[in-house]
Amino acid sequence: MEQLHELLQQVIPDGERVLTEKADLASYSYDASFGVYMPEVVVQPLSTCEVAEILKLANKHKIPVYPRGQGTSLSGGPLPVRGGIVMDLSQWTSKLEIDTENMLAVVSPGVTAQAINNAALVHGLIYPPDPSSMNIATIGGNLAENSGGPKGLKYGVTKDYVIGLEVVTPEGEVIHTGGKTMKNVTGYDLTKLIVGSEGTLGIITEAILRLYPKPQATETLMALFDDIIDAGRAISNILSAGIIPAKLEIMDKASVEAVEAYRPTGLPTNIDALILIELDGHPEAIKDEIKRVNDVCLQEKARSVQIAKTAEEAAQLWLARKLVSPAIVRVKPTKISEDATVPRSKIPDMFQRLKEIKQKYNIDLVVFGHAGDGNLHPNIIADERDTEEMKRVEQAVEEIFQAAIELGGTLSGEHGIGTLKAPFMEMELGAVGVDMMKRIKQAWDPNDILNPGKIFPEPNQRFVLTND
Amino acid sequence: MEQLHELLQQVIPDGERVLTEKADLASYSYDASFGVYMPEVVVQPLSTCEVAEILKLANKHKIPVYPRGQGTSLSGGPLPVRGGIVMDLSQWTSKLEIDTENMLAVVSPGVTAQAINNAALVHGLIYPPDPSSMNIATIGGNLAENSGGPKGLKYGVTKDYVIGLEVVTPEGEVIHTGGKTMKNVTGYDLTKLIVGSEGTLGIITEAILRLYPKPQATETLMALFDDIIDAGRAISNILSAGIIPAKLEIMDKASVEAVEAYRPTGLPTNIDALILIELDGHPEAIKDEIKRVNDVCLQEKARSVQIAKTAEEAAQLWLARKLVSPAIVRVKPTKISEDATVPRSKIPDMFQRLKEIKQKYNIDLVVFGHAGDGNLHPNIIADERDTEEMKRVEQAVEEIFQAAIELGGTLSGEHGIGTLKAPFMEMELGAVGVDMMKRIKQAWDPNDILNPGKIFPEPNQRFVLTND
Repeated sequence: MEQLHELLQQVIPDGERVLTEKADLASYSYDASFGVYMPEVVVQPLSTCEVAEILKLANKHKIPVYPRGQGTSLSGGPLPVRGGIVMDLSQWTSKLEIDTENMLAVVSPGVTAQAINNAALVHGLIYPPDPSSMNIATIGGNLAENSGGPKGLKYGVTKDYVIGLEVVTPEGEVIHTGGKTMKNVTGYDLTKLIVGSEGTLGIITEAILRLYPKPQATETLMALFDDIIDAGRAISNILSAGIIPAKLEIMDKASVEAVEAYRPTGLPTNIDALILIELDGHPEAIKDEIKRVNDVCLQEKARSVQIAKTAEEAAQLWLARKLVSPAIVRVKPTKISEDATVPRSKIPDMFQRLKEIKQKYNIDLVVFGHAGDGNLHPNIIADERDTEEMKRVEQAVEEIFQAAIELGGTLSGEHGIGTLKAPFMEMELGAVGVDMMKRIKQAWDPNDILNPGKIFPEPNQRFVLTND
Repeated sequence: MEQLHELLQQVIPDGERVLTEKADLASYSYDASFGVYMPEVVVQPLSTCEVAEILKLANKHKIPVYPRGQGTSLSGGPLPVRGGIVMDLSQWTSKLEIDTENMLAVVSPGVTAQAINNAALVHGLIYPPDPSSMNIATIGGNLAENSGGPKGLKYGVTKDYVIGLEVVTPEGEVIHTGGKTMKNVTGYDLTKLIVGSEGTLGIITEAILRLYPKPQATETLMALFDDIIDAGRAISNILSAGIIPAKLEIMDKASVEAVEAYRPTGLPTNIDALILIELDGHPEAIKDEIKRVNDVCLQEKARSVQIAKTAEEAAQLWLARKLVSPAIVRVKPTKISEDATVPRSKIPDMFQRLKEIKQKYNIDLVVFGHAGDGNLHPNIIADERDTEEMKRVEQAVEEIFQAAIELGGTLSGEHGIGTLKAPFMEMELGAVGVDMMKRIKQAWDPNDILNPGKIFPEPNQRFVLTND
């Protein structure tokens, strides 16, 4: 260990950016998912050259390297499951350039999506992707995981905004993919391959991101339903009416109750579900759309539809949605946040399946999320000290994945595979599908240096949610 | 050859779909670019199983397979440069399903983008990508090349609409990538890797495509300029005013003159350039935008701005743009259609560089294209029987690529690399960048069966435009 530390200090002479104290290592041993794994050493590079040298060193000595942002991953992306080096890129915040002429941002890996959006707003532009961790999480992490967010419905996810990358390959070579042009078909699309590859194919050291003109106006609506199945149908009908809201979120009864118990926002707790809708664009267009959304919801038996009259009222409605996650962990300490995603038309079926799973395994299941794009967040709350309960939870989660896939959906809409969902890869992709992905990993990273133990299941790997 | 023919007939018992007559082979020996290469045999599969069997056979006997749609490629994508089997997928038109609930189309590889859009329109939906060959070219070809089109500015290119594929791998295995969900981060994004890989990584046998609600209204404007540099600035200012037109096309003086000589549409030939703009969306939003576009153009010294009063008038303006390609080949028989693309802000610089190149090499250069996204189409017209002229053209094209890359641009915005631009790959990507792409090809296609001789340059391959 001493030796590795010394080697890294040759690359990064600034001693403060090579960490070996046990307390430091411990704070890099976990993320927002499950499992604790101690690294041997943590490095905090601040340049492409440093990243390249570290990877060359790691290849020479066959030491795994685990890239990491702020550790908000819900799937185990940055966990150093085989020890070795954690490469903390969160300190590399030096670049955040707004290119107004081309409507682009050029950023280093440590800046947050919120910082990018704030810098864009100064020029009347926005960076639309809005993962709920956007205040904390690094863009490097967003890129590695291809993060989504409520605005994904209208604006797409992180990948849709990336047109160029500087990447250090697993062997420590520097490549540039794409560039500042809107269109590029020169060879394979390495940009979109690397974004979402969960740090297994390269370290992103710089990204070129598209920005978008700020919409002229924004309005928020809330519709209350006595039956969540009706809410599902309303969502489907809004979209097939040709209206594409900026956001279209759902909260079930349990989410509403949890929020009201945690910090009352005045929501009625005697409903079965509510949907929150944000419309943006030209003021006249929104006026029309509000009317149509209102009609569709009432047709699908909404108890009522409320239109926020002021920006404050709108903010208050969205606050309730934001509070779901902190609120539900008050009920029980362990939260298993899933993101199994189904085709839009299968949302009512998925609600039905979730209801059955909840009863079958007697679990505390809360459902909310990005209903407009079929990306629900079934959250199970439990207590990880209760081994018997956790076993039921593991079975329930497995059945949620099964249900999503049977309905034509996917294991993960926006959280990634990481360590957590690796055992289920073949369930969705089949052995050949997984093999074709593995071939890319092997061709790019022959020594299996970069984030090993992620995405691809280890032989006989089982799904476990307990930390031991 | 007889033997190969017999082997293929075991896979496809229907004799009429295995072609060996010289006249048939000849019609598969060329595309819309340069070069003539005879295949040994042509097959026309109509099922995934047939495609898989053919590829297994080809691997066993080490015979190259060249997938092909309607042969409209401008970069040599389907040319059978090493003989072997041409796999004609244009006859496979059996599937064109519109899933209105999920706003998706599910299609077999032989249908056209126009047919998809027509089928969508019945349900008030559109399939936005609009390559100029959309009436003829197959969606399989569009997917292989990641085709663009005028609407790319607002709506993106083919890749932005693909969320799921059925693919036969180079070794003849069937995989499914993505699916019917809007979001999917389960493992590497093979969908976006395969789309645009020019038929070198797999044969697409089915695709799931996103559709979009038909915009409520559409308006067309034309602005005339006495200096193309002013036109470039107007384009830039329209976009930075936060207006994103559906299309924003430019025609230079030479294009206008060619069209008016070919089939007069009433355009003034004493201008230096014109821009054509289509705005779509909510009628009130468009009304505002028309006013703002008009103001920006006049500020940038437009001679006049004309707003089409009727749909017929709009169609007449777009007809002029469509006529450019057929019109310019009336001047000289050989057309070299380029698609070098630059960042939006570099459009005026690119105009300047093209002007200099035109003079330096004394070539007939016509410039038009998708100015809004920096994807110009500098077209050189020449006579390929004139060897001396063709040498100057080759040098000029090389310098156009050089200029695009120096301005931060790319070799190809939407036509692909194929055979034609392979010699320039390292100029844009560097040796390591090309190597990382090649590793994927080698890992997926160890016998180099699928469309060999494309994208990656052969040792010492030079750029040539003559057919011998």
